[in-house]
Amino acid sequence: MKINHLGIATNSISDVLSFWEGLGLENVHTETVDDQKVRVAMLPIGESRVELLEPTSDDSPISKFLAKRGGGIHHIAVEVEDIEASLAALKAKGTRLIDETPRVGAEGCLVAFVHPAATGGVLLELVQTLS
Amino acid sequence: MKINHLGIATNSISDVLSFWEGLGLENVHTETVDDQKVRVAMLPIGESRVELLEPTSDDSPISKFLAKRGGGIHHIAVEVEDIEASLAALKAKGTRLIDETPRVGAEGCLVAFVHPAATGGVLLELVQTLS
Repeated sequence: MKINHLGIATNSISDVLSFWEGLGLENVHTETVDDQKVRVAMLPIGESRVELLEPTSDDSPISKFLAKRGGGIHHIAVEVEDIEASLAALKAKGTRLIDETPRVGAEGCLVAFVHPAATGGVLLELVQTLS
Repeated sequence: MKINHLGIATNSISDVLSFWEGLGLENVHTETVDDQKVRVAMLPIGESRVELLEPTSDDSPISKFLAKRGGGIHHIAVEVEDIEASLAALKAKGTRLIDETPRVGAEGCLVAFVHPAATGGVLLELVQTLS
């Protein structure tokens, strides 16, 4: 297991990108994820990435977060080997999930979100990368 | 550079630990950091750690965060090779810092916080580990 990425919500990727670039990170890939109504800038850091998330629509989940809290850390994504097995183990413990089954996220990964109520307030994404 | 740890605020480490253990993480070390008035449980994940932060005092910075937001992701810590050099580079850009000079954090690391106003809402900790 490892941290796949940290999702950071922002009204404007271009407004915050210079800070992260100044720290030494580089935006290697930008992608629009229609399912989540976000544009995503990916900045590798070690084995993980900082992902800057900008809403592409007022009804994006990121828009709601920005309206409530302003920009900041939106979620943590943990990479697992077998997302179906991880979800089954969490379900067996009665863990509250947002996604009972995986769906396709950025770069074609399989992803599923765990509800913050189950984690003590952290929106947690499970990610299985394509092998 | 890499993500050194994710700081997650909680009223009670024991309340949330079972979730993270169920995900496959292990609490390898618990330490009280008097300077920050927190007890810290450290759960390695890849090259990084999840750190569960529980206040030891009502005037802990974590207590204020918990009162305002409830539990959740409090900060991101990025590991740098030379924290003095990183702070100098950020200062040269006019970046707003919480700590102008490093102080001693958990496990004797040198740490300094960057103000959320400079990062688009993320409380960012720079960490230089002991070599």
